Amino acid sequence: MANIRDIAKMAGVSVTTVSRVINNHPYVTEEKRKAVQEVMNSVDYQVNRTAVNLSQGSSKLIGVVVPFAKHPYFGLLIEGITDQAAEHQYHVLLIQTKYNLEREQEALDMLKHKQIDGLIICSHKMDLSVIESYSRYGKIVVCENAAGNQNVDSVFVDHYQSFNNALNYLHQKNYQRIGYCIGRNSGSNSYFRHRAYQDFLEQHPQQSFVFDNYYYFEDGQTIVEEIIDLKSKPDALLVTSDVVAAGILTACNQAGIKVPDDLAIIGFDNQPIAKMMGLTSFEIPHTTMGMKLFQHVSNQSAAQHEQLPIKLIERNTV
Amino acid sequence: MANIRDIAKMAGVSVTTVSRVINNHPYVTEEKRKAVQEVMNSVDYQVNRTAVNLSQGSSKLIGVVVPFAKHPYFGLLIEGITDQAAEHQYHVLLIQTKYNLEREQEALDMLKHKQIDGLIICSHKMDLSVIESYSRYGKIVVCENAAGNQNVDSVFVDHYQSFNNALNYLHQKNYQRIGYCIGRNSGSNSYFRHRAYQDFLEQHPQQSFVFDNYYYFEDGQTIVEEIIDLKSKPDALLVTSDVVAAGILTACNQAGIKVPDDLAIIGFDNQPIAKMMGLTSFEIPHTTMGMKLFQHVSNQSAAQHEQLPIKLIERNTV
Repeated sequence: MANIRDIAKMAGVSVTTVSRVINNHPYVTEEKRKAVQEVMNSVDYQVNRTAVNLSQGSSKLIGVVVPFAKHPYFGLLIEGITDQAAEHQYHVLLIQTKYNLEREQEALDMLKHKQIDGLIICSHKMDLSVIESYSRYGKIVVCENAAGNQNVDSVFVDHYQSFNNALNYLHQKNYQRIGYCIGRNSGSNSYFRHRAYQDFLEQHPQQSFVFDNYYYFEDGQTIVEEIIDLKSKPDALLVTSDVVAAGILTACNQAGIKVPDDLAIIGFDNQPIAKMMGLTSFEIPHTTMGMKLFQHVSNQSAAQHEQLPIKLIERNTV
Repeated sequence: MANIRDIAKMAGVSVTTVSRVINNHPYVTEEKRKAVQEVMNSVDYQVNRTAVNLSQGSSKLIGVVVPFAKHPYFGLLIEGITDQAAEHQYHVLLIQTKYNLEREQEALDMLKHKQIDGLIICSHKMDLSVIESYSRYGKIVVCENAAGNQNVDSVFVDHYQSFNNALNYLHQKNYQRIGYCIGRNSGSNSYFRHRAYQDFLEQHPQQSFVFDNYYYFEDGQTIVEEIIDLKSKPDALLVTSDVVAAGILTACNQAGIKVPDDLAIIGFDNQPIAKMMGLTSFEIPHTTMGMKLFQHVSNQSAAQHEQLPIKLIERNTV
C-alpha cells in the first residue's frame, strides 16, 4: 500500500503538504490540495484515522463503564451518552465489568495508556479513592454524589432525599411496615438510600425489610415468593427500578395479593412500563443524565458536580 | 512529560532498546530491561497503548453497530460480544445508529480508516451490498442469513423456518385468524418472517394481521387497544419479542381479554420474562449468538456462516 512518502512523490509535493491535506490544515494552496487528493484517490489511499488522532493527541473515544449492558437502566444511560458523543464526533468504548475489579482496572488503564480521552463510570465496585488517583490521566465522571471532590466530576440525583421523600409519603398514607428492594447493597447510591431508610426507622420504629440483588422484571416473582413465606410481611415497598416494580406488581396479581391494599409499591425511574402498569414512581431523567455525563467528560475544566431533579408521579399502586 | 528519547538517554541505552522493552520484545538483556523500567517508573512514563497497537497494526477494538442500546434484545447480544471480547483482550466500540444511514456509514468508515479491526452489525438499514464492499478493509459479521455470501460472515437463526413452524403449530391447535407483531417491517430478518406468513396465508387463506413498529413492553397496550378497535380480530399472535408479548399479555389481563381463549400468544427469544409470565416462546440463544459474533469477527479466515438452532417452549398462552 502507498504510504505518505509515496503520495508526496507522486503528487510532486512535500510530505508536510500531504500531511496538511490529510489533517485539513488551512495553509495549503487549492492546487496542491487537489493534486494530493487526486493521487490519494487513484491509489485508493486510506487515511489511518487512529494515527491522525494520535498525532493530534486525541483518540476521540470515551470509555463507558457499566456492570451490565443488558439492564435497561444502563441502556438508557448508554443511549444518552452515545447520542451526545455522536453529535460531537466522539465514539463510545463500552467496558462491561459485571462488577469485576479486574475489568474496572482495565478501564482505568485504558485512560492511563491514552486509548481513551475520558472515562464515564456508571457504577463501580472499586473504591472511589482509587478511581480518583487516575484523574491526572484524563477526565473521569461518576454517576453518584461526589460533590466537593476535586478530582472527578459527578452527575447524580440525591438518593437520600428521594428515599426520604418516598418513605415519608408512605408514612403519611398510613403504611407502617415499609421495606425496600434494591439491585446491590454496596456502592455509594445504595449507601445513601440505606442511610435514609435507617434514619426513617429511627424516627418511626418498625421491622426492617431489605430485599437485595434484584435487577430484572422476572425477579419480581422471587421477591413476592419471599414475602409470601414471611410470617411478618411488609405493607409497602420502595423498589429502586420500575422494571422490578412492574414484575412485583405482576407477581402480586398472579398470587392474588391486592395492590395497594395488601402491598403498596413505589417504583423509581418513571420508565414507560410504569405508566402502562399504573405504577406510582419517582421520575429520574436517565437519558438526560447520559447526555450530561458526556458533556462533563468532554469538558476540560476543573471537576464539577451536577445534581438532577427528581419528582414523584402518583398513580395507582399507593 | 519524558518521551522515549529521554528515557533512552537517562537509562543509558538506545531508543530501540526502550522500544523493545515497551513492546515486550525478547531480544533485550535482563539488565537493560531493568534499567529502562526503573527510569520509566521514576519519571512515571506512561506507554501510549494506542501508539503501540498502531505500530503493531491493530487497534484491539471491535465495532458493534446496534440501532438501540436500551433494547434488551441488543443488550443480550452486546453482553455476549463484550464477554468474549474481554476474554481475548479486545474492547468494544459501540455505535448506536437508530437506523440512521449516516451513523451506519460512520461505522463503515471507522473500519476503512483502521480505527477498528472488525465490525459486527447487529441490524442495519443500509443495503447489504454496500456493507459488503467494505469487507476488504476488515472482517464484517452480520446477524442475518447471508449464507453463500463471500464477503461478510453471518450468525443467524432461520426466521422463515421458525415463523413457519409457529404458524403451523397454531393452525394445528385450530387457530384460524393468526396475526403477527414485529419491530420494523424492513430488513432481512423481517423479510423472511413476512414471506413465511404470506406463504402460510396462501395455503390457509385468512385475513392478514400485521402490527409493526413495536419494540417495548409498554407497546403491548397500544397493540391491544388496536385489536379492541378492530371489527374483525385475530385469535392468535406471533410476537417477535418476548418483552412485547409480555406487555400484550398484561394489557389483555387489564382489558379482560382471556389468553389463550380469546387470543393466543407466542413470543420469541424465551427470555426470563417469558418463563415468569408463562408465555409460550421460541427460544433464541442471544447471548450465545453474541459470543459467536465475536468469534467470527476475530477470525481472519474466509467468510463463514453459522445457523443457530431454535426451539419451541410450550407454556400457557396457546
